[in-house]
Amino acid sequence: MRIVVTGASGRVGSTVAAQLVERGHAVIGLDRVAPTEPIPGVEHIVTDLTELAPRDPRLADAEAVAHLGAFMSWNDADAEAVYEANVTGTFALVRALTGSAVRRFVLASTGEVYPENAPQYQPLDEQHPRLPRTWYGLSKVLAEETVAFAGRTLDWSTVVLRFSHTQHPAELLDPTSFFSGPRFFAKARFAKEDAAGNAFVADQLRGFADDEADTVIVATRADGTPTTMGIMAAPDLARGVVLALEGDTSGHEVVGLGPDSSTDLGSFAARLADAAGLPTTTLILPDTAPSYTTSNAQARELLGFRPEYDEAHMIEAAVAARRERAEAARA
Amino acid sequence: MRIVVTGASGRVGSTVAAQLVERGHAVIGLDRVAPTEPIPGVEHIVTDLTELAPRDPRLADAEAVAHLGAFMSWNDADAEAVYEANVTGTFALVRALTGSAVRRFVLASTGEVYPENAPQYQPLDEQHPRLPRTWYGLSKVLAEETVAFAGRTLDWSTVVLRFSHTQHPAELLDPTSFFSGPRFFAKARFAKEDAAGNAFVADQLRGFADDEADTVIVATRADGTPTTMGIMAAPDLARGVVLALEGDTSGHEVVGLGPDSSTDLGSFAARLADAAGLPTTTLILPDTAPSYTTSNAQARELLGFRPEYDEAHMIEAAVAARRERAEAARA
Repeated sequence: MRIVVTGASGRVGSTVAAQLVERGHAVIGLDRVAPTEPIPGVEHIVTDLTELAPRDPRLADAEAVAHLGAFMSWNDADAEAVYEANVTGTFALVRALTGSAVRRFVLASTGEVYPENAPQYQPLDEQHPRLPRTWYGLSKVLAEETVAFAGRTLDWSTVVLRFSHTQHPAELLDPTSFFSGPRFFAKARFAKEDAAGNAFVADQLRGFADDEADTVIVATRADGTPTTMGIMAAPDLARGVVLALEGDTSGHEVVGLGPDSSTDLGSFAARLADAAGLPTTTLILPDTAPSYTTSNAQARELLGFRPEYDEAHMIEAAVAARRERAEAARA
Repeated sequence: MRIVVTGASGRVGSTVAAQLVERGHAVIGLDRVAPTEPIPGVEHIVTDLTELAPRDPRLADAEAVAHLGAFMSWNDADAEAVYEANVTGTFALVRALTGSAVRRFVLASTGEVYPENAPQYQPLDEQHPRLPRTWYGLSKVLAEETVAFAGRTLDWSTVVLRFSHTQHPAELLDPTSFFSGPRFFAKARFAKEDAAGNAFVADQLRGFADDEADTVIVATRADGTPTTMGIMAAPDLARGVVLALEGDTSGHEVVGLGPDSSTDLGSFAARLADAAGLPTTTLILPDTAPSYTTSNAQARELLGFRPEYDEAHMIEAAVAARRERAEAARA
């Protein structure tokens, strides 16, 4: 198929694009910025989605779409940018594809539409009402409705994939990683929480402001309960997107894309540190720190989704990638 | 209260603004264009909603909002304008009011979110799934979600009012009225359907292209069944908006605002013509012409809504207004 991938130079998008090329598809990447390294077999159009005109002739022969491009921010001052990129961007993309050969459209959404940190029941699934509390979560609700509308009126099969929390195994033990660094390392977490003014957490980590030992955080809530969530490995997430693109669902489907089981972040971090030979420090989180479980039953049934990464496999991949980085640095 | 009314110079908005002033409220009208006749007691800000900046100091002391301003079009080429005005406009309005004294927000939505012309069950009520098939209907779904989100995160009480089909009694027998003209008069209907390329209807009315007798259309569907819908009198609709503004509902409520009973448009038109002494012509509509009934039970229970206009009252007001226009023309 000829497949448009928005956000193709991003963390998930580049993996999706590479997997699609490997499976024989022609990929058109739509990105605000050109990828730093070209992905072989991917044709790139550099554009802001909001600048696309209706019935874009460059997209006329596209047959399917993976709309992964989005702006993520939880800073109130970024609400306009989040709205523009994720809501107006989705609207403009639908208008640009009107009249095209597209028959299948996959949207990357998020568990933040529920939201996951205030679940009415657990494990969270696709039937949970959508009551987002962040502009990012709202922007995805609006994008979901826009895509469902496009499906009804343009006769597309549409799939909304609600991504769970995602980590790239190769980044898990990289203290400089945008996602994994503040999640697992004391120094990066201190910088993030201190900047956000979260004194309760920052104060516990102040001693690690200049940490050079890559100390790993082992977090629990003040009441001793673990903070649990589904952690998805990026390559598994990409496989889920490919399954949705190649699947034969019809109408509008909503699918939560998450791992087979949820992870206790504290014990997972301890295992990571142990496997990599790194020191740890305990962090006490407020009792309000998010902790939830998610179901991937719908993804397994509807898409035949089978994640390849469990916790042990992720830790193994993380240690191997850290070793490679160390060897590269020495060379 | 100090109440912001968007679209205050519009058909419903001007009536709402006048009723609010009469009830002792201070009204700030927000409009793209200044009203042709100033409404006494209404302070006007002329602005496109999309141009409002976050935390607008001019709105800081507003306590309640009736967001009635919207762009209505069913022309595909207007999708961008509909989206901008109704979706981005609602987003920008919420951002402008962030940090203000607002505690109550009423949004004008539409039965087109269901949509009414493809009901899954009847009478239509607020529990019906939202599956719009027009950009206008979608724009209101997105506005509804944005307002509900604002309620959750800014601690506003929010009310979504889904307006039924609305007519102004004074305009019912005015062949030049934007809404009533093509609905009830052969000449105006011909012009509209001919321009839209609906030959099935236009061909039946071609003889009325230059009609000077104000011939009224009495329409039924080809299979002989009536076309039925709830017709709301604009002053009743305005009273519903005022009730929602002054009410004490909390959280997020969705209320269909419609008349006590639905109207058979064909027999209603025949009664209108009879009361005004006008000739009639029969029009056969496709079997797919919209016909539906709506419930206003929620509006009656939650808001204490009691429409004052029934069909007889609307006809009486329509005839009186037509007589006044004729007298004014003679004078």
